Amino acid sequence: MNPEQIIAALKKLVDDGKVLTDPADLDAYGKDWTKQYAPRPLAILLPKTTEQVQAIVKFANENQVALVPSGGRTGLSAGAVAANGEVVVAFDNMNQILDFNASDRTVRCQAGVVTEQLQSFAEDNGLFYPVDFASAGSSQLGGNLSTNAGGIKVIRYGMSRDWVAGLKVVTGKGDILELNLDLEKNNTGYDLRHLFIGAEGTLGFITEATMKLTRQPTNLTVMVLGLADLTNTMDVLQTFLKNIDLTAYEFFSHQAMQHVLAHGQVQAPFAAEAPYYALLEFEAVSDQVMEDAMALFEQCVENGWVLDGVISQSETQANNLWQLRERISESIAPRTPYKNDISVVVSRVPEFLTEIDQVVTEHYPDFEIIWFGHIGDGNLHLNILKPEDMAKEEFFDKCQQVNKWVFDIVQRHRGSVSAEHGVGLVKKDYLQYTRSPVEIEYLRGIKRVFDPNGIMNPGKIFDIGG
Amino acid sequence: MNPEQIIAALKKLVDDGKVLTDPADLDAYGKDWTKQYAPRPLAILLPKTTEQVQAIVKFANENQVALVPSGGRTGLSAGAVAANGEVVVAFDNMNQILDFNASDRTVRCQAGVVTEQLQSFAEDNGLFYPVDFASAGSSQLGGNLSTNAGGIKVIRYGMSRDWVAGLKVVTGKGDILELNLDLEKNNTGYDLRHLFIGAEGTLGFITEATMKLTRQPTNLTVMVLGLADLTNTMDVLQTFLKNIDLTAYEFFSHQAMQHVLAHGQVQAPFAAEAPYYALLEFEAVSDQVMEDAMALFEQCVENGWVLDGVISQSETQANNLWQLRERISESIAPRTPYKNDISVVVSRVPEFLTEIDQVVTEHYPDFEIIWFGHIGDGNLHLNILKPEDMAKEEFFDKCQQVNKWVFDIVQRHRGSVSAEHGVGLVKKDYLQYTRSPVEIEYLRGIKRVFDPNGIMNPGKIFDIGG
Repeated sequence: MNPEQIIAALKKLVDDGKVLTDPADLDAYGKDWTKQYAPRPLAILLPKTTEQVQAIVKFANENQVALVPSGGRTGLSAGAVAANGEVVVAFDNMNQILDFNASDRTVRCQAGVVTEQLQSFAEDNGLFYPVDFASAGSSQLGGNLSTNAGGIKVIRYGMSRDWVAGLKVVTGKGDILELNLDLEKNNTGYDLRHLFIGAEGTLGFITEATMKLTRQPTNLTVMVLGLADLTNTMDVLQTFLKNIDLTAYEFFSHQAMQHVLAHGQVQAPFAAEAPYYALLEFEAVSDQVMEDAMALFEQCVENGWVLDGVISQSETQANNLWQLRERISESIAPRTPYKNDISVVVSRVPEFLTEIDQVVTEHYPDFEIIWFGHIGDGNLHLNILKPEDMAKEEFFDKCQQVNKWVFDIVQRHRGSVSAEHGVGLVKKDYLQYTRSPVEIEYLRGIKRVFDPNGIMNPGKIFDIGG
Repeated sequence: MNPEQIIAALKKLVDDGKVLTDPADLDAYGKDWTKQYAPRPLAILLPKTTEQVQAIVKFANENQVALVPSGGRTGLSAGAVAANGEVVVAFDNMNQILDFNASDRTVRCQAGVVTEQLQSFAEDNGLFYPVDFASAGSSQLGGNLSTNAGGIKVIRYGMSRDWVAGLKVVTGKGDILELNLDLEKNNTGYDLRHLFIGAEGTLGFITEATMKLTRQPTNLTVMVLGLADLTNTMDVLQTFLKNIDLTAYEFFSHQAMQHVLAHGQVQAPFAAEAPYYALLEFEAVSDQVMEDAMALFEQCVENGWVLDGVISQSETQANNLWQLRERISESIAPRTPYKNDISVVVSRVPEFLTEIDQVVTEHYPDFEIIWFGHIGDGNLHLNILKPEDMAKEEFFDKCQQVNKWVFDIVQRHRGSVSAEHGVGLVKKDYLQYTRSPVEIEYLRGIKRVFDPNGIMNPGKIFDIGG
């Protein structure tokens, strides 16, 4: 079939007007937030039902057409990029909340439900969907699950994976499977649910998900602490974890905070300057918890770990303190940052960060390094700002060299080249720094079981051929 | 190779004296707690290292020898039974705790570490391993993970799956893989860790696991409530969940309690009789929580859901109340019970239980039904006692008929034929009541990727041929 014939055939598989081929649509739906790949899809499909998705997959198998799943396209690893004439299957028209069970505290969603839509729905029903991150306003559930999205509350609530009661999927072979039937306990062979979560659309399409909800948190209280030294991030974390269930433990460097303050609208939390800051959040369910937290804080000050600190006395104050952390990305965006999302086990964070810092500073002393991240999970976001007088091309060339140093250090510390953003195209060449070549062969074997013709998101995570 | 040659060859792969062929050993290592299969292994191997396990697997592939993994053999689905001349690979000699990281709160264990050993180790280090169940004194970690064991704290702490930071495995092809590198966040392709958990040894051997620990619970407090009606189990659960993080929500019928009381050593919790009882456990971290719990209790009484209740005032009282639930199995053991472990979503429990109750009672009015289980997770343990005057054979024949009714009802309610005990041999013929035939084909496909020669625990969960 030639491209025109394919498009004509696809029009029979979805509702009228749900095959888009306008250049503007091809451009918009062919890329995600990574931007560095030029979008070039053949067409965009907007199915309404799982059965339409199934028909698309069957057609794709018969005609060897490559399919790219598309959610909110907020990914940072190019998992949803269509740059090679693929057909994009977007879930914008499958954005309904289908069912809510108050007793089971579960909500059945189509894959195109936006994260914030689910969060609001939970809140309206007196419950809480705890997975949260910067792109919640446009990211879709199907994409969140396909990348096992993490975010700012992982230390308490886990990753997206941990909130999935059941999935409906269409495999790369075109079979509809209902995985786990929304059960809390179900030990009947391999859990395929966990295989599709984080598969970045390479095994098939997630078309529906039943998500678990939980009770709303009570009186969330935020502390921001100025730390004397990097290793004190760990000391403070250990001290608080012994007595308090933290809902977040974030970290950012002095440089990061300077950019946020210069960006405006946010004030410094206290007068003292510190090389690093920690942001802690917990439920102050009783006066006792508040007293415990203050006692731990004082202990940290006495030990010399904490130079100064502030604690929120209201929800507004708590939200304001969160801005210190949440506005980092936007405040450095104008500086064309190189970004990397990496992790190690928590105890290795200080050494790991210091090694990366040293190698970059030694070779490129004019590079400004901005550190922040979910340090309570061992997850660091490394950002390097382009020197004002350096051409973009030169900067990104040098960053390719930085990548190698960073991933060598990741591998030496048995870390992950992608903590929460997935592999997509961006990290594909570095997958073997975290997964052994032998293990990657098993990933390929699994791919062949679900997608023997290799039509599902080809070239993402790994190449089929090796 | 003939059996003698196989045994001679195996002796070269493990330490001296670690190949057992004594009839008593063959009998002991060839069965689990199910008992109904006659053990008939060829030999028992006791490897010391992952490399020895790898050598065994490579030999088995070259000579088409079937291997059966063996832990504490406390399983109830015959997953560890060797009844067809298989070679049993037991982990009794791989029972070391290899490493403990207080900062990461992780402990690296060999597969043969006993559950209670891990629990005690955590406690000695001021931490808590929360997965707990009746066989904790002899079950081994490798077996727990291969069956994704649940137990009495799932409502708060989840299943075994949720406590695994990393695994070392030997695949059925003989490759050693290190899965997830103990990381909290690692989104680099399919999570093979979750594939091995619950695979019942059909994909390979788990030889090491890094387990997460958490803080010790504070002032665990137990309530036992007498419920007016079955549906009140749900009402009470919903009421408490709104305000209190329960660590357990168990249930048992009046009949179950009668057997425990008749068995001796335990007293009735209160004078009033009720058709059903609920046992709630929570952390009374402050007086406020206790007051909240009492207020919720009174609300349940006012609504007519709860007839009477008692709350523990000390650890000893809490432990005594737990006896009412924990002694059920042993108190009915002399009555040759038919046992089934099934689940549905929580909201369907009352209807589901009633339907099973009705069909059994209608056909076999002389069968005594004992219900108990982890009702907060939708997990019920159905036990039926043999009438005193009925021959065992007749009873078990009739129970085969009961199986069909029960699993038909399970299927109609989209439930699981094995909530937490796994499939093994016992539930194999009923797998398609929870997993569709199409889905089971994918399970077979995955099996072929990891174990192409079908040497790993053959015949468990499903047959390779279909």
